[in-house]
Amino acid sequence: MLTLPQKLEFIKEIDKLKSILRVNRLANGQRRENSAEHSWHLGMMALVLQDYVEEPSFDLLKALKIALIHDLVEIDAGDTYAFDMKAHADKEEREHKAAERLFTMLPPDIGQELHSLWFEYEDGNTPEARFIGALDRLHPFLQHMANEGIVWRERQMHKSLLLTRMIEVKHKCPALWPVVESSIETAIANGWLLPH
Amino acid sequence: MLTLPQKLEFIKEIDKLKSILRVNRLANGQRRENSAEHSWHLGMMALVLQDYVEEPSFDLLKALKIALIHDLVEIDAGDTYAFDMKAHADKEEREHKAAERLFTMLPPDIGQELHSLWFEYEDGNTPEARFIGALDRLHPFLQHMANEGIVWRERQMHKSLLLTRMIEVKHKCPALWPVVESSIETAIANGWLLPH
Repeated sequence: MLTLPQKLEFIKEIDKLKSILRVNRLANGQRRENSAEHSWHLGMMALVLQDYVEEPSFDLLKALKIALIHDLVEIDAGDTYAFDMKAHADKEEREHKAAERLFTMLPPDIGQELHSLWFEYEDGNTPEARFIGALDRLHPFLQHMANEGIVWRERQMHKSLLLTRMIEVKHKCPALWPVVESSIETAIANGWLLPH
Repeated sequence: MLTLPQKLEFIKEIDKLKSILRVNRLANGQRRENSAEHSWHLGMMALVLQDYVEEPSFDLLKALKIALIHDLVEIDAGDTYAFDMKAHADKEEREHKAAERLFTMLPPDIGQELHSLWFEYEDGNTPEARFIGALDRLHPFLQHMANEGIVWRERQMHKSLLLTRMIEVKHKCPALWPVVESSIETAIANGWLLPH
């Protein structure tokens, strides 16, 4: 099959996601997390938390595919910190270019499928895109909670700013929202997060 | 839902897989790979190489679940290097204990499903277990090829010893075997692997 060398080249190329460092640290606080291991963790969260999706047409296979590929564009575009407004200005353009380059490395059948799934995730208009979008917010939040808010404390994070980011969980997976609310109270009580 | 705290505790616990270092290095050679990012990469390989499975009953969703969970037991049991015969002596016992501890952290429905999938992977008797088993051999092999055999050269790896490990690809996913054969010839020609 002539498409195999293309696929092997893609498999090698995406190894670069392991060198894209995110702002959040591991649960044990010891180092920053990379986007490949974050993507694995989202897949595991989708497996374990799937029953919190309230939409009956939810397709777990599609959700897992989205979890695996959702951050691939960071290979070219880098990880954009949630609260970096300057970097957000051209984030969309950078990421669309990256998706074009990466997914066209593959033969059209699988390349187009993954490219479409990435657009679907970006648009956030399907049950699967909404669920993975919610988990993508929840995951670093849980990491910050586990390591006693190392990054929040460093950056003097305020509850109100954090909520502008976390409110997506309420919109996209309301059944998980109580986790965010009660954790924020814990974080404030422990001094990991500023209360206003 | 009373099961949510259990699930969140499991999600935090499995973060430890990111601190389990494997023997193989990243494609760029810069550092050793961890088992969480390796598991992500197996999922991506399953997505991209699924059409090399020749068994019609193949279920991609099950394969992706297996890819995500197949190494979780290393959290307790550590990564056992393929050619470390001493460590292999009690590998099975250590891993079975680890599976018991980890999967019973979860509520029974999802915990039992994941535990069964892990046994299925260990037994290697279904199309999905065979395919992920083949990819689990192929993945570090491709990483070694990409970084010009850093670890093979350090350890003076021989073709014959490597083949005892890689032959699984021929048994479990024969359509991908030519990749191994031709890569080994390349590796020998380049001096990354000893020829006998």
